[in-house]
This record gives sequence, structure tokens and C-alpha cells, in this order.
Amino acid sequence: MERGDNPERRIAAIVQYDGTNFNGWQAQGSGRTVQQEIERAIHILIKEECRISCSGRTDTGVHAIGQVIHFNISSTINLQRLCIGLNGILAKDVSIINAFHVNNSFHSRFSAVEREYKYLIHNNPQRSPFMKNRAMWVKDELDINYLQKTADYLEGEKDFASFCKKSSAVEKTVRRIVSLSFIRKGDIIEFTIRGNAFLHNMIRIIIGTLIFMHKTGKEPAYMLQILDKKDRDFSGKTAPPCGLYLSKVKFNYDFTENESAFQIKHDNI
Amino acid sequence: MERGDNPERRIAAIVQYDGTNFNGWQAQGSGRTVQQEIERAIHILIKEECRISCSGRTDTGVHAIGQVIHFNISSTINLQRLCIGLNGILAKDVSIINAFHVNNSFHSRFSAVEREYKYLIHNNPQRSPFMKNRAMWVKDELDINYLQKTADYLEGEKDFASFCKKSSAVEKTVRRIVSLSFIRKGDIIEFTIRGNAFLHNMIRIIIGTLIFMHKTGKEPAYMLQILDKKDRDFSGKTAPPCGLYLSKVKFNYDFTENESAFQIKHDNI
Repeated sequence: MERGDNPERRIAAIVQYDGTNFNGWQAQGSGRTVQQEIERAIHILIKEECRISCSGRTDTGVHAIGQVIHFNISSTINLQRLCIGLNGILAKDVSIINAFHVNNSFHSRFSAVEREYKYLIHNNPQRSPFMKNRAMWVKDELDINYLQKTADYLEGEKDFASFCKKSSAVEKTVRRIVSLSFIRKGDIIEFTIRGNAFLHNMIRIIIGTLIFMHKTGKEPAYMLQILDKKDRDFSGKTAPPCGLYLSKVKFNYDFTENESAFQIKHDNI
Repeated sequence: MERGDNPERRIAAIVQYDGTNFNGWQAQGSGRTVQQEIERAIHILIKEECRISCSGRTDTGVHAIGQVIHFNISSTINLQRLCIGLNGILAKDVSIINAFHVNNSFHSRFSAVEREYKYLIHNNPQRSPFMKNRAMWVKDELDINYLQKTADYLEGEKDFASFCKKSSAVEKTVRRIVSLSFIRKGDIIEFTIRGNAFLHNMIRIIIGTLIFMHKTGKEPAYMLQILDKKDRDFSGKTAPPCGLYLSKVKFNYDFTENESAFQIKHDNI
């Protein structure tokens, strides 16, 4: 079918991927990217070239459990067939979990009001082959009460200039963190952070700083000093990408179940 | 140090590996194998050539959480330094979890009295990128009560000829299964099987048969007919290797904690 035969319709979808073998989200000159692979799969399935947008661009090695994308197509393909068809074409490290009809007011990036990320730390004297590329490995026992107390200083609307990649060209470095929490599940420490948006490498620098402060025995309140400096030189190393997961995106938009491919309960989304 | 300066000592170790990128356990002509990589790491670390034995040879793609190995060395290297040294040399998909001094009566294969394997099924209409190479994917909902009831017919000492790879040259096909159990954890079904020993592909054929019977609506007691046939043609397909994990090996041997590298509680072992 020729593009243009039908009016364009906007589709949103929830995407999961293991970021290990991707050069991140964004289509670029070289290397495999999630964006390119999904655009290619859409082209193979419905013979339309389209450009997809996402809620949060992930770097090389970073994973997604609940990335949200949107794109416009002319095809009237049924949503369930679209998901199943794309999953049949896509490599096994990406999966379309659900798809929705949305109107043109929806934008995966600009309609997003909150993003949730998880960071996993494998805290065990022994390295686990199963946590390779899935979590940061920390040998020495971490005290999650200390991590929680220290992280709590980051809650609220603050200038996170100390927690932004140096080469980042962003002008405004104020972001609002809604919540930060640490839970231990056996030898896995799961950190969950929610906020309106995050600076480049912000979560990985937060984790690196928390671990640096833990190792060097800093008082939790030292976090305030790092914030005050507004300088990347005062925070810790950037933690490895393999522990980071984009887990959920919340929108100012009503997703109706009867407009979705599968009847799965998503917590908006 | 020249080999022979010291009397040989026997060492047992617990090994974990993600089998995805290995051509199985056993050293062979081509491809990466777990045995070869560990023997190579020992050679690099203590300059001794040794041959290692294991409790259960795993096929290509099969994982281990609690593989047990043994080998003899002349070096008097401290056990903790041996583990840490080997882990520093080994690739990140293999890890030595603990090591023990054992006497020559211990043999990782012949002293083993019981082996435990796990098989993971990812039971979800949607494929997960994180379960790729870690579990078998089954789209349609499985009833674990049915699987349990059907699997129970396999408990005890029986002739498992119907559950043995055809090309296997083994003569005796009688094995004793001590227990089989299914637990559902969200969309993961975890199957645990314990027995004195298993035939080639036996667990994967059991899983394939259970899923085949479930799909075709067979009565649980039909399992007895398959057993009675003593013929591989009557059982189901061999389930994929990626769902299988060698999880524990029990020995008729007393491991003493003060002869181990790390004070980790292992349930013998």
C-alpha cells in the first residue's frame, strides 16, 4: 500500500530491551541502535518509513523495561498483529510489550510527566556470571540504611549540575526528584528513582557518588556540599551502564484499554 | 616452581557459569569450553598443567549455579588467593564461588550422590529480552498443577529409556528421581528435579514431554505409557538448553569450613 492512501494514525508502544549489545537508543552513524532496529522492523512489516520518538534516550549498555515510543503510520494494521509482527522481525534482545492508538496530542517525550529508573547493584564477595551486563558488582557489603539516608538529601527540586556529564551541552540543570529508595533482595540491591526528568548520566553519577561516600566513610549530609558545589568534579565516578534500567514512564494522557493490542494492566503506563 | 617439588593436593571448587557462549563443559577440538578455560586459568596462575573433572557435564548453552569440580595441584597457594586469582583471569561468564581442600577419596563425579537441576520457563504472552538465553519461552498459559501431577509419575527408580538422547551410547537407562517440583514466581515457572544421576538430555526431554502433553490435553497418567515404551520416539521434543541450570550436587563427603576459601554456607554442597 502506498503511503498516503490513509490518514496517518499515531501509535504508542511499550518497549523492553537488553542494552548490552546496543549502541544505545538513538540512530547514529555506526553500530546497532534500538531506534534503528525498530524503524527497520516497521519498514519490513508495513512498508512504511517512519521516525520513532522515545520517552528517554538510553546510553550504550543501558536497559529498558518500560521505554515508551510513538510513531505515525498510514497502515490500518491491527495493533496485536503489529506487535506480534514486529516481535517476529526484531532480534531477541528487543520486545514490543504492548501498543496503543493515541491521538496526536500524545508525545512520548513531551507528554511524559515522570520517569522511573532502577539501578541494580550485585553486592556479593563473589562475582556472578548471571549478573554480568545486568548489575554493577560491589564486593564489599553495602549498608542500605546509609545509602537511603544519603540519597534522601537529593529529593526535591534542586540544581543537579554536580551530577551531570561534563560534556553535556544542557543549560538548565534543575530537576525534580520525586523519590529515591533502596531495597535489598538477597545479594541484589535495587535502587528506584523517580523524577520529572534526568540529566545526562545523572543516575549513574548519583550511584557512583553514593558508593564513593560509603567507601570513604563520609557523613550522609556531605551530599549537600556536593550539591552546593554545582561542579561535576566533586561527585563520584559514573557507575557502569549495565546496572541501569528505564522502568516506567508516566504520562498526562488516558490510555484506554480497548485501544491497546493486549489487555495488560499497565500502571499508567 | 617445578611441578613435583611438593606432593600433590586435591582441591574441590564450586563453579558458576552462564553457558550461552560456551560449547558446553567438556574440552574438545573446537570452540570455547568451561573445562578448557578453567584449566587455562590454573596454568596461567600457578604454572601447572592439570586436568579437571566435574560432577555433571553440561551441554552447549546449559548453565551452572553449583557445578562442582576437582583437580590436583602441587602449588601450596592459599585457597582464597586461588579463587580470587582464577576469577581475575577467567572471563566474566564463569566464576569460582568457593574452593576446598579435600582428600584423595573425593571425586567430583564418583562421590556425588545426588544432583539437582533447575529448568526455567518464561510463561508470558510477550517475549522478554531479559529471559533470552536464560529460560524457555512458552506463550500460552501453563497450569502448574497439571505439570506437577504429570511429572509426579516420574518419581522413583525407573527405566528412563524414553527420555534419553537417541545417539547416546549409554547401556543402563535406569535412574532414580528423588523429587520433581514446579513453583510459579510471577511469569517464571521454576522446575526443580533431584536424582542420583541423569541420562543425556533427560531433563530437557522431560520438560519437552510435559509441555507436549499439556498442549495436546493428555491425561497425566499418559506419562506411564511413555515410560513403558522405553523408546525416545514416544516422548516430546527436547526443550532448549538455555532453560537448564545444574544447581546443586550432594556428596558423601564432609566438607570442613576451615578447609575452604570463603566462609559461605553451602548446603553440602
